[in-house]
Amino acid sequence: MSSPKKVVLAYSGGLDTSIILKWLQEEKGCEVVTFTADLGQGEELEPARRKAEAQGVKEIFIDDLREEFVRDFVFPMMRANAVYEGLYLLGTSIARPLISKRQIEIAHQVGADAVCHGATGKGNDQVRFELGYYALDPDIKVIAPWREWDLNSRTKLIEYAEKHGIEIAKDKRGEAPFSVDANLLHTSSEGKALEDPNEEAPEFVYQRTVAPEDAPDKPTYITIGFERGDAVSIDGEDLSPAALLTKLNELGGANGIGRLDLLENRFVGMKSRGIYETPGGTILLMAHRGIEQITLDKGAAHLKDELMPKYAELVYNGYWYSPEREMLQAAIDTSQELVTGTVRLKLYKGSVDIVGRESPYSLYSQEHVTFEEDDVYDQADAGGFIKINALRLRLLKARDRKAGKNS
Amino acid sequence: MSSPKKVVLAYSGGLDTSIILKWLQEEKGCEVVTFTADLGQGEELEPARRKAEAQGVKEIFIDDLREEFVRDFVFPMMRANAVYEGLYLLGTSIARPLISKRQIEIAHQVGADAVCHGATGKGNDQVRFELGYYALDPDIKVIAPWREWDLNSRTKLIEYAEKHGIEIAKDKRGEAPFSVDANLLHTSSEGKALEDPNEEAPEFVYQRTVAPEDAPDKPTYITIGFERGDAVSIDGEDLSPAALLTKLNELGGANGIGRLDLLENRFVGMKSRGIYETPGGTILLMAHRGIEQITLDKGAAHLKDELMPKYAELVYNGYWYSPEREMLQAAIDTSQELVTGTVRLKLYKGSVDIVGRESPYSLYSQEHVTFEEDDVYDQADAGGFIKINALRLRLLKARDRKAGKNS
Amino acid sequence: MSSPKKVVLAYSGGLDTSIILKWLQEEKGCEVVTFTADLGQGEELEPARRKAEAQGVKEIFIDDLREEFVRDFVFPMMRANAVYEGLYLLGTSIARPLISKRQIEIAHQVGADAVCHGATGKGNDQVRFELGYYALDPDIKVIAPWREWDLNSRTKLIEYAEKHGIEIAKDKRGEAPFSVDANLLHTSSEGKALEDPNEEAPEFVYQRTVAPEDAPDKPTYITIGFERGDAVSIDGEDLSPAALLTKLNELGGANGIGRLDLLENRFVGMKSRGIYETPGGTILLMAHRGIEQITLDKGAAHLKDELMPKYAELVYNGYWYSPEREMLQAAIDTSQELVTGTVRLKLYKGSVDIVGRESPYSLYSQEHVTFEEDDVYDQADAGGFIKINALRLRLLKARDRKAGKNS
Amino acid sequence: MSSPKKVVLAYSGGLDTSIILKWLQEEKGCEVVTFTADLGQGEELEPARRKAEAQGVKEIFIDDLREEFVRDFVFPMMRANAVYEGLYLLGTSIARPLISKRQIEIAHQVGADAVCHGATGKGNDQVRFELGYYALDPDIKVIAPWREWDLNSRTKLIEYAEKHGIEIAKDKRGEAPFSVDANLLHTSSEGKALEDPNEEAPEFVYQRTVAPEDAPDKPTYITIGFERGDAVSIDGEDLSPAALLTKLNELGGANGIGRLDLLENRFVGMKSRGIYETPGGTILLMAHRGIEQITLDKGAAHLKDELMPKYAELVYNGYWYSPEREMLQAAIDTSQELVTGTVRLKLYKGSVDIVGRESPYSLYSQEHVTFEEDDVYDQADAGGFIKINALRLRLLKARDRKAGKNS
Repeated sequence: MSSPKKVVLAYSGGLDTSIILKWLQEEKGCEVVTFTADLGQGEELEPARRKAEAQGVKEIFIDDLREEFVRDFVFPMMRANAVYEGLYLLGTSIARPLISKRQIEIAHQVGADAVCHGATGKGNDQVRFELGYYALDPDIKVIAPWREWDLNSRTKLIEYAEKHGIEIAKDKRGEAPFSVDANLLHTSSEGKALEDPNEEAPEFVYQRTVAPEDAPDKPTYITIGFERGDAVSIDGEDLSPAALLTKLNELGGANGIGRLDLLENRFVGMKSRGIYETPGGTILLMAHRGIEQITLDKGAAHLKDELMPKYAELVYNGYWYSPEREMLQAAIDTSQELVTGTVRLKLYKGSVDIVGRESPYSLYSQEHVTFEEDDVYDQADAGGFIKINALRLRLLKARDRKAGKNS
Repeated sequence: MSSPKKVVLAYSGGLDTSIILKWLQEEKGCEVVTFTADLGQGEELEPARRKAEAQGVKEIFIDDLREEFVRDFVFPMMRANAVYEGLYLLGTSIARPLISKRQIEIAHQVGADAVCHGATGKGNDQVRFELGYYALDPDIKVIAPWREWDLNSRTKLIEYAEKHGIEIAKDKRGEAPFSVDANLLHTSSEGKALEDPNEEAPEFVYQRTVAPEDAPDKPTYITIGFERGDAVSIDGEDLSPAALLTKLNELGGANGIGRLDLLENRFVGMKSRGIYETPGGTILLMAHRGIEQITLDKGAAHLKDELMPKYAELVYNGYWYSPEREMLQAAIDTSQELVTGTVRLKLYKGSVDIVGRESPYSLYSQEHVTFEEDDVYDQADAGGFIKINALRLRLLKARDRKAGKNS
Repeated sequence: MSSPKKVVLAYSGGLDTSIILKWLQEEKGCEVVTFTADLGQGEELEPARRKAEAQGVKEIFIDDLREEFVRDFVFPMMRANAVYEGLYLLGTSIARPLISKRQIEIAHQVGADAVCHGATGKGNDQVRFELGYYALDPDIKVIAPWREWDLNSRTKLIEYAEKHGIEIAKDKRGEAPFSVDANLLHTSSEGKALEDPNEEAPEFVYQRTVAPEDAPDKPTYITIGFERGDAVSIDGEDLSPAALLTKLNELGGANGIGRLDLLENRFVGMKSRGIYETPGGTILLMAHRGIEQITLDKGAAHLKDELMPKYAELVYNGYWYSPEREMLQAAIDTSQELVTGTVRLKLYKGSVDIVGRESPYSLYSQEHVTFEEDDVYDQADAGGFIKINALRLRLLKARDRKAGKNS
Repeated sequence: MSSPKKVVLAYSGGLDTSIILKWLQEEKGCEVVTFTADLGQGEELEPARRKAEAQGVKEIFIDDLREEFVRDFVFPMMRANAVYEGLYLLGTSIARPLISKRQIEIAHQVGADAVCHGATGKGNDQVRFELGYYALDPDIKVIAPWREWDLNSRTKLIEYAEKHGIEIAKDKRGEAPFSVDANLLHTSSEGKALEDPNEEAPEFVYQRTVAPEDAPDKPTYITIGFERGDAVSIDGEDLSPAALLTKLNELGGANGIGRLDLLENRFVGMKSRGIYETPGGTILLMAHRGIEQITLDKGAAHLKDELMPKYAELVYNGYWYSPEREMLQAAIDTSQELVTGTVRLKLYKGSVDIVGRESPYSLYSQEHVTFEEDDVYDQADAGGFIKINALRLRLLKARDRKAGKNS
């Protein structure tokens, strides 16, 4: 690959990406364009502008992507009820494709021939960023400094920063006890102090949820409204996607909901331990299950359950922009047309429970489940149903007996 | 089918099965053998003997099946992490095949040509019982009174009981507000008062869990030991399968764990609402996920996740004794050989969270996840990994561009 | 169910459905509307009109559904590469939902409250017809005479026909040696003379294919053009769906292609043996595989392969009008947008082989597969790719060794 | 990785691996141990010994692995009915894990710290070899010269050979028109002259099958006997696994069976075109399907069909020694216990067709498929079966109507 001339850097304004910025300018001789996204990580973004300017950056992009993030990434994933390895709501994974997409858009806009990210060489995020880049622009050059440079220790980084006059926040001088990633859907904490998977994560790790023990002693009840599979209101108030998730984060965080201590399998082949907080997303997922319970046919529901692990794996591994994810999404979305109604939830000290659901398109029929007779369901039919379903098992057992097979 | 001569009845000693007993004797002219199983439902079984004798039954079987239930049914299912429709731990479903099996064994022992159960014609249990019967004895005759007789109202049942001198407990004279099924794994409540899926189940429905609000204000920590995928100890104390689950039920019940309000899809095609309590099972499932996190390879773990929905559906639908369930079990069990170690859990007001896991067979390697260099993982490899994985996406995008396809 | 007043009968004009017609009039006291569909079965349909009139039918529908059949049923199924139990191209299964649909449409048009078919009580077709009826009109009444009446032998049928003055073709007096179903996609023969699965089907069973031994000694080469996953031309000549399949049937039939001797598992739980001829469909399926080879990304192709068995089972079992089949179709169709190009095939004495494929949207890149260097593929990347993919296997083996596990 | 000292080379005796041998000695300074396997590729192996000796090799392994190959690799794969991308019988893929295994065994035996193969950097085989190596010995060093050296053109190779006095067969001086891989299961030809996927492969490419046009004008009938899922006899003659496959290769080759022109998706992300000949394997796969038709229950058969694409992908990608392949194998093998009996096949000019199957453990019951009454199957049951299966579809349609949904 010929050397890149102009690069769009995913830039947070923090120490690491500031060093990368300088390194791109100095070692790579690139013109650098910075891109800072508001995905709801809860940080001031304007300082990033100032810092980029201070490093001589001429083209600076600071974009509020919160609505797009929730509407086009979080919500489609929620429609799939996606959970990775039984427990993880994919809060980091789902943000990466949006960042990739916007970086590539900016690259095309400013005529850059390369993009750069600050993810390390052992994690999933490098894969997610880069699969996104390549899927959206097959000719783009990708720079991953952490896999390339020799600044592979805190000491060397600090030295490099000092040498190049990069501002170092006081708390960044020493090693952070763990690394954090955040967006509107979740906060993850991992590494160093959290690496012993048999030691409970200390309370100070948690950043956006109170401990269940500190949550209110009375449950909070809320009602979430859905239209076509997406949440649209809380307690009757219509909210935009990002506003809705923000509100659920407050409710979840205050009730200690959405904490997860996970030992997971990374795409790159090793296990890692993460502490995740997904307060609003945990509520949303449960609510979505609730509205599907009453509006989704069994055939659709079970097919969704069968497809889900593959969908979640694709999102986790960074294959958002892949034909197979799009095919699964098409299947899933086809099922959501009448997933409309309301779900009532109880939030209490770390738990979220469905306590009610109703829909104008309900498939639940009280009259059919009662023990009385009805027109549609003749109990005698059940006998035939069972007999026919049992037929192959009977023939099988008769055969196995004849064969002297024990089972 | 020629008329049955001798029938093994699944008999609880309650009003309904007492009426069935009489009805078999009177209307069907059968000799009746009763079979009452202790599956941990928490009821005295000896009264069933007395009542059966009072109705002239000569062969009475009362069996304690608790250990077999947990060891051979609950545990294999836990190894699969089986959950139906995302939430239901299959507590009723998994008991049925054992009852079927024992009924057929007794039928062979006493020379009966028929078996009979008291499940209604609209539910799943009739299917589960009967698929079990037929799978184990293709020639058995099956009697399902609720699909056959005309005693299809409470009034008619009471009349029939009075006419035939069947003892009627005072609280059975009126309609029960809902029906209950229980075993060592769970208690389910459904029907009548619970049929409006938008109305929160009242507190009195719950029978073996305290309300989370009434659970202790301090968390309980426990450690569960596993061997080859099965729980074998709590806090270092070795316990038999049934003793272990009993203990977990106490712990879970006291901490408000395992409640579920579900609107589910029955095998017979309708939706129904159930209130489930699975205190110990909920803990067990989470613990099993925890021990798998540290001992199971990604390939095995993800295959298990993909197979699970089908496995759960088979158990729910009553196909325990089917070649496909046995095939899935073989796959699952193959993965469990080194699923050994301990999981530490925090129980608190309705929640159960993994807070630690360790294993002599751990696949987690702290040295590999750190950001430092190591021998096994060369960060440059990740670049190649990504490039090769991206290749097809790049070729695809180049093609799509050429084709003018938007995506 | 209250007794039906007006019924739409799927009527072939043959002896069996003529008897059903009479039986509906006489025993059921229904007004009968006949519906005869041209699905390419290759029979004159006008005699059906005359016969229906002779039996006093006032409303007679004779519809040419060939184009709709191929376009809306066969083609979507071909896009899925659907094959049941590894071998069966679903030729009978796929016709049933269209007949059901048209019968329901006619019922609504003429104000009928019931529909009736002539399928037997042991086969799959009764299920397919009736699931179609109910899925399209939940209130429709369904009459299945073969499950209801007592005319359950050839002798009784003939007696009934004679008694009611129904015309009996000479060759229908005796037992047919096997029963036949045909449409534009295939011909199936089964029953009686074919019931020994260890005896080769005699040559006279085959009705639309010559024996491979009698096919031309020189291969026939053809080129099929595809657009968006559907065949649109043969040897450059654009053809309508039905015309195209008709032409392929001629080509396939003349070359002995598409014969299948199958022992299959029916939905109703038993095994049955069928002799199938699907000359054009066999060519079409292979051609579709060929065009997908060059235009479909691996991710899409492999997902399709994984979903296919379920899709095929749904079609076989009669769940065409189910949310899950529609979801799978949505996934499949999403993949077909650029499945456009041509496939060259060699037809010879029973075989159809792909010998070439090209597409304006080809994903095949000759430059990338050569052994020479290229820009996109750096061979060193493969090393990283392998190392990262191997990582988990290495960690696993190291663990297993430590654990003393043999494998 | 520290530099390897002693390496086990997968050595054919041909030009390429002879150059690799020299290169390992000269450039890597390694002691080389050669390993040459007889997998039925049909070449003399003793010349490899002479050549290795001539290059100073002291430890030379020449092993006949044919029986192990068929028994422990081909047969388990056949039990799975494994086919990649609908058509490819995995003939190259399945040989790699055995070679890897034996190389690692030899490395342990002779105290080598490295292994080496001659696969190129763009293909699947490098992945298959190396995943096998690493899965069996996590500490092994792997040398892949084609990804490392600069002998990346025929000219350079020839120069290198001449310079080092390596014998060059006359026909190896120029570029081969395509490359060939062979073993007892198949022969593959790919590259160069075959790279245009729209040009029919010329007849001279085929090496072990006659053209269908040149095959006998009369069909050949054979009977294959199976025990527990594996073929054990032909026409009543018991044969060892390798002898049986050898015999089937003769029969298939003589009848023009098992040719395949495929455009496939490689694991490394590109498409490639291969010409495959799998004469005996094609017969074996069809025969296995035949014996399963009569001995396998529907539930088992359909689960196998659903699992197969994943199994085939694992084999193709080189994950033979992975927990997930072993889990799938456990599921599959569980189903094969009574897959015993005989299948009669017709071989004719490129086609292989099942014409009969029988088994002492047959699940086919002629009496149940006839139209007459029987004890096990009451046709009225089918009505109930359909009604219950239709229930959800009816409720769905009633709901959709109410919702004004078109479908």
